[in-house]
Amino acid sequence: MNTLHQSFSVRFTYDVYFSDRLFETSNPTFLNFLKKNHSEGFRKKLLFILDEGVTIGHPDLLDEIKAYFANLSIVDLVPDLIVIPGGEGAKNDPALVEQLVDAIDRHGIDRHSYVVAVGGGSVLDLVGYVAAISHRGIRHIRIPTTVLSQNDSGIGVKNGVNYRGKKNFLGSFAPPTAVFNDPKFLTTLDDRDWRAGISEAIKVALIKDQAFFEWMEANAEKLATRDLNAMQYLIHRCAELHLNHIASGDPFEMGSSRPLDFGHWSAHKLEQLTDFEVRHGEAVAIGIALDSLYSQRLGWLSEADANRILNLERALGFSLFHPALEGDGVLKGLNEFREHLGGQLTIMLLTALGKGQEVHEMDLSRIREVIGILKENEIQPA
Amino acid sequence: MNTLHQSFSVRFTYDVYFSDRLFETSNPTFLNFLKKNHSEGFRKKLLFILDEGVTIGHPDLLDEIKAYFANLSIVDLVPDLIVIPGGEGAKNDPALVEQLVDAIDRHGIDRHSYVVAVGGGSVLDLVGYVAAISHRGIRHIRIPTTVLSQNDSGIGVKNGVNYRGKKNFLGSFAPPTAVFNDPKFLTTLDDRDWRAGISEAIKVALIKDQAFFEWMEANAEKLATRDLNAMQYLIHRCAELHLNHIASGDPFEMGSSRPLDFGHWSAHKLEQLTDFEVRHGEAVAIGIALDSLYSQRLGWLSEADANRILNLERALGFSLFHPALEGDGVLKGLNEFREHLGGQLTIMLLTALGKGQEVHEMDLSRIREVIGILKENEIQPA
Repeated sequence: MNTLHQSFSVRFTYDVYFSDRLFETSNPTFLNFLKKNHSEGFRKKLLFILDEGVTIGHPDLLDEIKAYFANLSIVDLVPDLIVIPGGEGAKNDPALVEQLVDAIDRHGIDRHSYVVAVGGGSVLDLVGYVAAISHRGIRHIRIPTTVLSQNDSGIGVKNGVNYRGKKNFLGSFAPPTAVFNDPKFLTTLDDRDWRAGISEAIKVALIKDQAFFEWMEANAEKLATRDLNAMQYLIHRCAELHLNHIASGDPFEMGSSRPLDFGHWSAHKLEQLTDFEVRHGEAVAIGIALDSLYSQRLGWLSEADANRILNLERALGFSLFHPALEGDGVLKGLNEFREHLGGQLTIMLLTALGKGQEVHEMDLSRIREVIGILKENEIQPA
Repeated sequence: MNTLHQSFSVRFTYDVYFSDRLFETSNPTFLNFLKKNHSEGFRKKLLFILDEGVTIGHPDLLDEIKAYFANLSIVDLVPDLIVIPGGEGAKNDPALVEQLVDAIDRHGIDRHSYVVAVGGGSVLDLVGYVAAISHRGIRHIRIPTTVLSQNDSGIGVKNGVNYRGKKNFLGSFAPPTAVFNDPKFLTTLDDRDWRAGISEAIKVALIKDQAFFEWMEANAEKLATRDLNAMQYLIHRCAELHLNHIASGDPFEMGSSRPLDFGHWSAHKLEQLTDFEVRHGEAVAIGIALDSLYSQRLGWLSEADANRILNLERALGFSLFHPALEGDGVLKGLNEFREHLGGQLTIMLLTALGKGQEVHEMDLSRIREVIGILKENEIQPA
């Protein structure tokens, strides 16, 4: 009997809104989104799941949310706002997955209701995963509260949790229904989190947009001293580049190429080797330095350009070496990255500021050499 | 700052192959698929997960598979073929999900390797779910072994497991990489499973293809007496209609409409109420009878056409009543179906043989009336 061929496309759309003080009752942004997606005669439910750290930094937030949705005729806020611990630990705890699945079941959240996650990247990853697997995918709204999640992870299409210490071993590709970036949340970040998120902007600028890189050079001091306007511009531009990349490439990463993972193969491993004491963005800053110097030793990037990259990172306050880089641990990350990608290793390197180039192998002794240089620089900054 | 708009499409393609004795070493079908998807210089892994019932019915199967993949240079068969219990119980057991995720981890199955499921719908649903959530989606190949899975569930895009007794509460939409339908597996089905799978063909014929319905009327005796050629035609045509429906509609069911779920709202509940003693296809046969009679009582379907439907089902050996239909249990299924769909209830009914029409409400007293008729008919068959 003849073979049957199946072929179809699925269209995904969502908006990323930028709005200050999202849950002040006078702010119409969220309400307008709900109105636009309202179906006559049917009240959708909203289940909020919040990052504990955010509720501590913003003690009025829970009450603000309750007040914002009180008396709205088009949605029903589930009155039980769920607060969970944030940070990488949240992604390591299977009991949290179960707690959230139970909440979806208990509150009768269906595929047309919304699960709203408020928090840093880990909480968004965890809640996105739970929403994606419940009822074969419940609509989820992301309200990222860190630089990293507002400019990168929170606006993308991935979710995931760790499994027996393996980062994002369980997860899926599931675009959000909407993303709301509120700068108010950035004001209470600690300095490490403020800084760490900038590394994803450096990354995307280096592979895609030299002008954005040069904007960061010109604004490094403002960024380092927590100028909120500069940070809002950085987040908006980084998010825009990221969204364009997803839409124009391979959104669900069916191929082996992962161009946005510049600087990431070593970063993932460094996080794991340090039990996530080194935060993702901090690890990415080191990974960028490593792969930039590697690109230079390969003869692809000029010494002047490589130094510009390292100098920008230092001006922002990043440390570019960690003792866990020594030994074989990080080198093993290369193989784990290959396995996660599937099959062929594909690593992005640089041929110029704003221009990436993929390779399919890296030389271990040259990586060791570059790590040695990073270590020396750390002891006697250039 | 201005809102960023994201929009992209993801294309999914897969083939459904029909081939007798798939793992005889002389059969090139599976090998040709692997060759077509081979990447030079890289050996993909194949992890097989099999339904225990199938390995009992086909005691040589494990050895045949090992022999088929021995000495192939383009793939590596994971020598540990995993055998798991089949049937609805498999979808109720979280330990099985964990066992399979562990196997994927332990054997280093990456996103470009294949997880191959051989079995009935439950095993395919379970394995498809595990493949979908591991590494954010590993390629999976389905080899359905029952009528129901070869003509319906196994060729579609859904997977799922049950959660605390709630059917398919956890799951996702994840198209397979390929499907292989081998009629050899049908020869060892028990009569109930042979028959049960036919109800999905009746269903799709009733809402889409009158000629196919009439072909079944003409071939009812052959189908009832296990004519393998007739069954192969039925499966091929049913699969074709099903694939066309998915591709032309809303593959990931983002809207509320579920036209292929004709006869299913009561069927899902009946399975649950009987602890899955009533099999899915048997429950669907009853659900079809119920919704056909309901369509007739609504004045949409002629009495003659309603009788043709019931008579075909009886000729195939289906029982059209079950005591669990009495009481309020099944009626509750209407609300659960609404919740699973999300928001608005959408039920497919019939206006003619081969022509469906959606409604958004059903009258409970009329449903009770129809259940009464089904009960009477059962006592004194028309």
